[in-house]
Amino acid sequence: MMYESTVVQFTALLNNLNAMLDKAVAYAEEKDFDVDVLLHARLAPDQFDLMRQVQIACDVAKIGVGRITGTVDSTPVHEDNQTSVAELQQRIDEVIKHINSFSTDDLIDISNAKVALERWEGKYLTGQEFLIQCTIPNLYFHITTAFAILRHNGVALGKDDFLGEMPYKT
Amino acid sequence: MMYESTVVQFTALLNNLNAMLDKAVAYAEEKDFDVDVLLHARLAPDQFDLMRQVQIACDVAKIGVGRITGTVDSTPVHEDNQTSVAELQQRIDEVIKHINSFSTDDLIDISNAKVALERWEGKYLTGQEFLIQCTIPNLYFHITTAFAILRHNGVALGKDDFLGEMPYKT
Repeated sequence: MMYESTVVQFTALLNNLNAMLDKAVAYAEEKDFDVDVLLHARLAPDQFDLMRQVQIACDVAKIGVGRITGTVDSTPVHEDNQTSVAELQQRIDEVIKHINSFSTDDLIDISNAKVALERWEGKYLTGQEFLIQCTIPNLYFHITTAFAILRHNGVALGKDDFLGEMPYKT
Repeated sequence: MMYESTVVQFTALLNNLNAMLDKAVAYAEEKDFDVDVLLHARLAPDQFDLMRQVQIACDVAKIGVGRITGTVDSTPVHEDNQTSVAELQQRIDEVIKHINSFSTDDLIDISNAKVALERWEGKYLTGQEFLIQCTIPNLYFHITTAFAILRHNGVALGKDDFLGEMPYKT
């Protein structure tokens, strides 16, 4: 379940986010405005804009997998210097590629791994706690907020854009 | 991991949602407006309002646990007839109470359970797929959207309100 909850589902979510950005570009073209307006849109003046929501979502996925597998020190670094949707989508793609370099075996024994962030001053969470109570909530938070910013600005997104395809069986 | 991903985390999320509604009430009192305005606020004209976002979050948690444990037919029914924050919070509390009637043992063997919704016309998902790709994303989607609606309307919510307390160890 650990691999499906992380690599598989994070990949799906990031791909869905990528597709939402495609719809944002199409909407800007249709309405004839600069899509950068959407990249810098936000729902409150003291909230991060769409660009930053996507950047954080990328980091949460990448660093989350890095921490629970004990590989965070070799996680690729991305500066927050993207200036276009295309650059943002490239960052998403790089994160998808990176997290897919992990196998099911890499994620089997994380339940009792200790995750200790510097700002936690010596305290820690188990890998499972960090995943369920920190990484997954944060990832959904930032992707849903990105969705909400686009939705608020008129991009025709629906729940299917967020959820993606279901792996139905017959 | 299944129990922690469902009963434990859903309870935390619903309690956090409840506390966000408390902050909405306090904000309305402070600004001297009727909190019902917030209950009917939305981020787009064709999006569900805050009231409905919370009602759906309740149903996703309750029915999600019901389906993966094969007990959906005995899941308590809630009509969408709440008219106040207090009534909405009562519904949240009833869902929390219901999902906490399940034990870890009830959730051990769900991976291969079949979940088949009527509208899927004979297709199905495994319990694990339904949880990871449908229930969890939907729950986060509606709670984050509720957060975003309140945030957009000036309620001073931060990430900690969404995430709640972390179970740090020393």
